[in-house]
Amino acid sequence: MEKIVGILGGMGPLATVDLMGKIIAATPVQSERDHVRMLVDCNPKVPDRTTAILDGGPDPTPALVEMARGLVSQGADLLAIACNTAHHYHPAIQAAVPVPVLDMIALTAQRVAELNPPVHTVGLLATQGTVRLGLYHRHFAARGITVITPDEVEMETVMSLITGVKIGQVGPAPRASMTALARSLRGRGAEVVIAGCTEIPLVLSTEPDLPVFDPTQVLAESIVHMVRAVWQGR
Amino acid sequence: MEKIVGILGGMGPLATVDLMGKIIAATPVQSERDHVRMLVDCNPKVPDRTTAILDGGPDPTPALVEMARGLVSQGADLLAIACNTAHHYHPAIQAAVPVPVLDMIALTAQRVAELNPPVHTVGLLATQGTVRLGLYHRHFAARGITVITPDEVEMETVMSLITGVKIGQVGPAPRASMTALARSLRGRGAEVVIAGCTEIPLVLSTEPDLPVFDPTQVLAESIVHMVRAVWQGR
Repeated sequence: MEKIVGILGGMGPLATVDLMGKIIAATPVQSERDHVRMLVDCNPKVPDRTTAILDGGPDPTPALVEMARGLVSQGADLLAIACNTAHHYHPAIQAAVPVPVLDMIALTAQRVAELNPPVHTVGLLATQGTVRLGLYHRHFAARGITVITPDEVEMETVMSLITGVKIGQVGPAPRASMTALARSLRGRGAEVVIAGCTEIPLVLSTEPDLPVFDPTQVLAESIVHMVRAVWQGR
Repeated sequence: MEKIVGILGGMGPLATVDLMGKIIAATPVQSERDHVRMLVDCNPKVPDRTTAILDGGPDPTPALVEMARGLVSQGADLLAIACNTAHHYHPAIQAAVPVPVLDMIALTAQRVAELNPPVHTVGLLATQGTVRLGLYHRHFAARGITVITPDEVEMETVMSLITGVKIGQVGPAPRASMTALARSLRGRGAEVVIAGCTEIPLVLSTEPDLPVFDPTQVLAESIVHMVRAVWQGR
């Protein structure tokens, strides 16, 4: 029987739907049955990751571990986390379950490092939590790639746009603001901009002169690859 | 703690993502945490419902019952089925679990019957399985509403468009074809067209002179109402 992916989602809900849509689109299918079975815990009640990291807010670890165990007990053979910041808790989640938990941040850094021509500097749009902890920085540093981030004032805008997406603000105005922030990183020397929070792809488009790398897309492709190519040999 | 909805999905996957998007959009929120927690089993491996009904194909009941029990054991307080045809198995699913299973078809018939000015004739776009079994007919008949359906040749087009959506064919061409089928029902006297298969809203738009009633939207609103208004008193 084909393997099943479990998704720790709801952080936020639209980002989870975005990941699911990208998994569906990334699967080569000739009929409904060829699609990947996904068990999704879309749980918007998980304590806010950035608040926990920066301000000592409630710890999301128990909720994330409970979600991971629930998905595995329901039959998931592989887990994915539809939130970049929550990857801070990846080691705790992986330690709690006997199945592999994909690491979206490591996978993204690996894919960027494989780009040809090679990239030396990436711009990172992400939450304060992801930036402060250096979740991307450490993976890129290991590959000799420099990470630049928005300045303090811009970071406030990033956070406010991310919070907006979580409550459905995905129209032209937030899209224009997020794109301006990406352009600012590009102007400061970023060869590629990493949409390093799962809300960001919902308000940021790739344009010819503004190359964007989407970790949600990388995660979706990795899931399909694991379920169909690695395990099924297709 | 706020109640959790479990969704029997994957029939097809895009239709499940559509339902989730409609639940998210129907929820009044001020922050991520206000969204509804959804446990989703997006299982495209469920035997085809129409094939089982019309041609004696493999019975989907065991898969649907297993999915329902899994969602409840994971914590779902309420279940919904993101497939109209699968509502043929609603009694078996309901009998297998101790939580309420929403009936999208009954809810839709009720909402249509409440329209003002009243509707006397609806057009039904749905699978061969849904039409032959009269899943909508019986609920509308009980309310004195006549159901008209596409002719035999048109039904083949409906089925082929539905099968197409299940593998991602949601562009302008299928949209034009589905809209022509809805217009045909309208021309034959349908006051409202029911998008009675969860794939159909993905290739059918409401136009001013072509009123479409979307059961997926009705189900989404019912879920939000149950979780937030009925159980939480909001």
